[in-house]
Amino acid sequence: MTIYVDMDEVLADTYGAHIDIYNKEFDGNLTEDYCMGKEVWHVVPEAHQESVRNHARRRGFFRSLKPIADSQEILEQLAEQYKVYIASAAMQFPNSLEEKSDWLDEHFPFIPWQNRILCGHKHILKGDVLIDDRSYNLTHFDGRPLLFTSPHNIHTTGIERVNSWQEVAEKLL
Amino acid sequence: MTIYVDMDEVLADTYGAHIDIYNKEFDGNLTEDYCMGKEVWHVVPEAHQESVRNHARRRGFFRSLKPIADSQEILEQLAEQYKVYIASAAMQFPNSLEEKSDWLDEHFPFIPWQNRILCGHKHILKGDVLIDDRSYNLTHFDGRPLLFTSPHNIHTTGIERVNSWQEVAEKLL
Repeated sequence: MTIYVDMDEVLADTYGAHIDIYNKEFDGNLTEDYCMGKEVWHVVPEAHQESVRNHARRRGFFRSLKPIADSQEILEQLAEQYKVYIASAAMQFPNSLEEKSDWLDEHFPFIPWQNRILCGHKHILKGDVLIDDRSYNLTHFDGRPLLFTSPHNIHTTGIERVNSWQEVAEKLL
Repeated sequence: MTIYVDMDEVLADTYGAHIDIYNKEFDGNLTEDYCMGKEVWHVVPEAHQESVRNHARRRGFFRSLKPIADSQEILEQLAEQYKVYIASAAMQFPNSLEEKSDWLDEHFPFIPWQNRILCGHKHILKGDVLIDDRSYNLTHFDGRPLLFTSPHNIHTTGIERVNSWQEVAEKLL
């Protein structure tokens, strides 16, 4: 079985980083609960939206993200049983490419470079399972799509959902 | 129809760059004819092999490559008719990731970021045609594999071959 796993908001806590950076720079008090159901840039004053939308273009943004809870332990177990690939739609942010590679070396060293993919569209992927937080990546996938819950996608319906890495383990291990 | 195109030695003249760097640094007189049928590092004295094998790890190596003859014109015509993706096994050299993105912006701006893939294994790709200079990438591809001639692969048999971008045009346009 071949499993593809997205990075941002599945392995790496991009959403939390947007909130942290915003709160620090604009003396804000955003929380995940407050943002629930929306993108972080949707809930800030219009004058701050451009700043939040450009977080991902900053040097160091992707390198300093925190791993999502339990992702390291569960993914390592999956990689022992299945062909596991990490697939990130990273080409939009060229500054992120080397940072993402370095980040994976630190947090997911058991996924070798042969099993890492930085791409644009994900419908090019041939395999059995795709775990992703974006419905537009999942709907064109030929295999079994799993929507990984992130604050921005809680209202999405019609796709099999996993709320945590523990739930991924229950379904796939 | 979906077409995947490799970068090194198909769009970018990596082989020529190895020869140029070697000749400059070791006062050599290598030519493509002399290297024919082998990798460049195979034909240099043993004491120089490590240096040649590490060219690709240098900052700037991938950014300064020359495009292969006719690749820009023909690929642009292909991209007008088909879904064209550039797929490079770049993850082995993390320093190359941003350079490859910048290089494509300069030489192949008509291929947008959504259609660029940096990967390890290429058997993850789902599509109709793969143009590559490495037989190990081509043999596991489900669609039609096209071996793009490079000095190192002239003895490879058993795969449909294209000797130039003009021949790609004759077969696919």
